[in-house]
Amino acid sequence: MTRLPKPDPKLDLVLERTVDVPPELVWKAWTMPEHVAQWFTPKPWHIPECEIDLRPGGIFRTVMQSPEGEQAINLFCYLDIVPNERLVWTNALLPGYRPSSQPFITAITTFEPHGNGTKYTAMAMHVDEATRQKHEDMGFYDGWGTVLDQVRDYVKTI
Amino acid sequence: MTRLPKPDPKLDLVLERTVDVPPELVWKAWTMPEHVAQWFTPKPWHIPECEIDLRPGGIFRTVMQSPEGEQAINLFCYLDIVPNERLVWTNALLPGYRPSSQPFITAITTFEPHGNGTKYTAMAMHVDEATRQKHEDMGFYDGWGTVLDQVRDYVKTI
Repeated sequence: MTRLPKPDPKLDLVLERTVDVPPELVWKAWTMPEHVAQWFTPKPWHIPECEIDLRPGGIFRTVMQSPEGEQAINLFCYLDIVPNERLVWTNALLPGYRPSSQPFITAITTFEPHGNGTKYTAMAMHVDEATRQKHEDMGFYDGWGTVLDQVRDYVKTI
Repeated sequence: MTRLPKPDPKLDLVLERTVDVPPELVWKAWTMPEHVAQWFTPKPWHIPECEIDLRPGGIFRTVMQSPEGEQAINLFCYLDIVPNERLVWTNALLPGYRPSSQPFITAITTFEPHGNGTKYTAMAMHVDEATRQKHEDMGFYDGWGTVLDQVRDYVKTI
């Protein structure tokens, strides 16, 4: 994809953060399973399994687990990958591009140089206004906000 | 995508044809609007509008029209493009990768040298067995078979 879609306030949810480490490091935190497992779910949940095949059509799968052992599986397909710049991933398709039975979002994550650090943005794109609202009501800002804070803290340790 | 998924007989529908013109010409017929408009719907329907933005995330839109003026609009998003080799396109996503309200198939079209000509294959991938069966019952083999015959005849004229 050569052009990024602009957020549509009726259909999309967007968050951004800045951190004082370079984009190359933030990229690693987003694309290597051993790093993703450290921050991609709000604590005290953790990630016992993370699988990444970093190519268009490749798998991005995480298993999130609560302290009580409850699990949530997140299965995405990568669509567009520009190292150190952006990731596009969706659960409207399974890995290998087959249509999914549980389509919900396409996510676009961008990484931009910001002074000596990085501004990273996460955008969730939905099929319609009702789905966007449902995602907001499910706690998008709290949930995604927390993990974006967690990765900001985590990248300073790697 | 570096690896193509293999057809799953329970979930996918596949057709292939051979034609005695080289892959480069068959590719043109599949990717240039003025050519696609000549064969992509079974006659006597025709295609008054065709829009192609040949990049991952780009639009593939055709308007099909019956002699009586009835119209059907087909809106797809390209996912993977390897010139003269393969096209992957889906209506599970809109152009720009937003989840679609009418997901149905991902199509993989491949073009291989075959003697002095080309073997081309069209695979339709579905979310589940019921959707595959519905597509077959809707007339997949007749409909797609007819257009694959039409492009075979058409490429000899360009």
